[in-house]
Amino acid sequence: MTSKTLQSLSKVLLMGPGPSTVHPNVYEAMGVQLLGHMDKEFVGLMDVIKAQLRQVCGTANEVTMPMSGTGSSGMETCYVNLVEHGDKVLVLHNGVFSGRMIDVAGRLGAEVESIDFEWGTPVELEPVKKKLAEKKYDIVAVIHAETSTGVCNPVEEIGKLVKENGALYLVDGVTSLGGMEVALDRWGVDAFYSGTQKCLSCPPGLAPISFSERALAKLKARKTKVPNWYLDLSMIINYWEGHTRAYHHTAPISMNYALHQALQNILDEGLPNVFARHKAMHEKLVAGLEGLGYKMYVAEGFRLPMLNVATCPEGVDEAKLRAYLRQEHKIEIGNGLGPLAGKVIRIGLMGETARPENVDRLLDALKAFKG
Amino acid sequence: MTSKTLQSLSKVLLMGPGPSTVHPNVYEAMGVQLLGHMDKEFVGLMDVIKAQLRQVCGTANEVTMPMSGTGSSGMETCYVNLVEHGDKVLVLHNGVFSGRMIDVAGRLGAEVESIDFEWGTPVELEPVKKKLAEKKYDIVAVIHAETSTGVCNPVEEIGKLVKENGALYLVDGVTSLGGMEVALDRWGVDAFYSGTQKCLSCPPGLAPISFSERALAKLKARKTKVPNWYLDLSMIINYWEGHTRAYHHTAPISMNYALHQALQNILDEGLPNVFARHKAMHEKLVAGLEGLGYKMYVAEGFRLPMLNVATCPEGVDEAKLRAYLRQEHKIEIGNGLGPLAGKVIRIGLMGETARPENVDRLLDALKAFKG
Repeated sequence: MTSKTLQSLSKVLLMGPGPSTVHPNVYEAMGVQLLGHMDKEFVGLMDVIKAQLRQVCGTANEVTMPMSGTGSSGMETCYVNLVEHGDKVLVLHNGVFSGRMIDVAGRLGAEVESIDFEWGTPVELEPVKKKLAEKKYDIVAVIHAETSTGVCNPVEEIGKLVKENGALYLVDGVTSLGGMEVALDRWGVDAFYSGTQKCLSCPPGLAPISFSERALAKLKARKTKVPNWYLDLSMIINYWEGHTRAYHHTAPISMNYALHQALQNILDEGLPNVFARHKAMHEKLVAGLEGLGYKMYVAEGFRLPMLNVATCPEGVDEAKLRAYLRQEHKIEIGNGLGPLAGKVIRIGLMGETARPENVDRLLDALKAFKG
Repeated sequence: MTSKTLQSLSKVLLMGPGPSTVHPNVYEAMGVQLLGHMDKEFVGLMDVIKAQLRQVCGTANEVTMPMSGTGSSGMETCYVNLVEHGDKVLVLHNGVFSGRMIDVAGRLGAEVESIDFEWGTPVELEPVKKKLAEKKYDIVAVIHAETSTGVCNPVEEIGKLVKENGALYLVDGVTSLGGMEVALDRWGVDAFYSGTQKCLSCPPGLAPISFSERALAKLKARKTKVPNWYLDLSMIINYWEGHTRAYHHTAPISMNYALHQALQNILDEGLPNVFARHKAMHEKLVAGLEGLGYKMYVAEGFRLPMLNVATCPEGVDEAKLRAYLRQEHKIEIGNGLGPLAGKVIRIGLMGETARPENVDRLLDALKAFKG
């Protein structure tokens, strides 16, 4: 029996910016008895997970696998393996998470530049094109689905510009993966990371990544050791690849079971169906919100299906609203981050959360709020 | 229902160097419905976990909490937060994991020295005393329970010498925590890390750490930013401490549920009882092994209770033996690492694995092996 503390926890409908609702069979997967991290049956499962991830990521990259940390460790992995002191990194900046990229890359000694776009608007191509024509970069980085603003950036079009520049193309897919198309190979992405607790509908704890051959070549050509033993891909690859697996660290076995099951659920439903479900639930939510006087923060055409940012009707205090939803209806929604704190609410429709009954439950609760 | 792959996995008795057997209620804990990582109920649980960890670690350190990665990320956390370029680090080296410390610290720009002791023997005090009298170090580091050799190092006595030197004292407790006494405050430890998948009998995925006030002062006095965003304690503390919690990354919620339950199990049994059980099972195993012609690799008095390293009787091939145990008896034991590869077997008696029925099952299986 679990502790009284665990038994007393509320059952909350997770409609914030992640974690999202987890399917019962993913919880069940974590209850499967542990194998050793070097056990041949676990190694077999590692290969299954890699193949599943390749499908969801739209890539044939051999190095496509989960890192043993949460989504943010995926960002760290991409930069720490690819950046050497003095490397030129260009970050396309329009939210909290691209801001974090600037910090991460700077700590590693990169010469970081950014092009800043207004929060709530997408990256525009013209300024990027101009900047990339002026200077050769080692890495150009962008967030696909900016969780802090609800904006979808034009990653495919940016990819074409980056290709002309010759830089490596680094894309954050933390919030997009599993909820909308991710096509790394078609987009020309060289380094990609995501998290498990958004549209994959798996608990947080792993960071799927994918590295292209070009990215691996940069890693192999490093003049200095990766300044992070835990996330050093040149060693971790020897655990996740090949016939003989070399011990590096002890993989989070149960989390890998959960990720495998969550990916299986998505692939069983079919990627196009999953994406269509996210889109349909987004449209249902937007119609409902607008009917109640909420205004979408992002212009139509640039909105993410899985992360909906809105301003409240006049007279509705967003902090009181969130507290009311959590307390009276056991629904979690998200607050604004950074400059959007206090100004917007963020509603997640990620993975298993993107179901009509959840949208209805939230809209009913919003209706019932008296301020 | 879980996938056919998960359903097909063998149920293996984990008697290797970790992961160890997990109690059913810890699996159950991971099935508890997720809360958001900023939810007030989850924040309450974080405080419970910190208090539990302090008890098991023998410390009043406020900063005692799990990092969101496996045990190795705990090692990385200690070094990346405490080392600045040119810092003088002394590693007491007598196995794989102190060897790893040399690598980790070196990558961060530390001037690393080591005193090397023969594998299978403990750190000796005289050479340490001599070295520390000659030079002032920033950090002196040692492994409490060396998982690669089965040796227990005299961490308390070393602590007294480090105190005289004035260095920060960094101790690895990955394998010891929860299986034998850990008394950070009495030993004068400044930075400590462990893993969940050894004597805590929790799946791998988190790294409990503890930092003293002196260690925090060194962190605060840094001239440069911690060159690792994901593991930067100066930010993570604001998520795990205080009245208002600041978002840093999404904590692995389910893993924290599991850790809480695993710690509860240990505290319910009582630390002295848990340690006595490990010791008794160790003695039972050693008697059984020696009766079968196996020889303990470490001299009596320096052996770890939870990790038993032995050489096989003449004519017994260790690789064949391990394959036989795994295949015919569904028991995992460990191989030798580094210079001990092919020479020894490693038998774990960690946490829930340290039960008489498990020792008997292994000894019966060893008896049945015909080579």
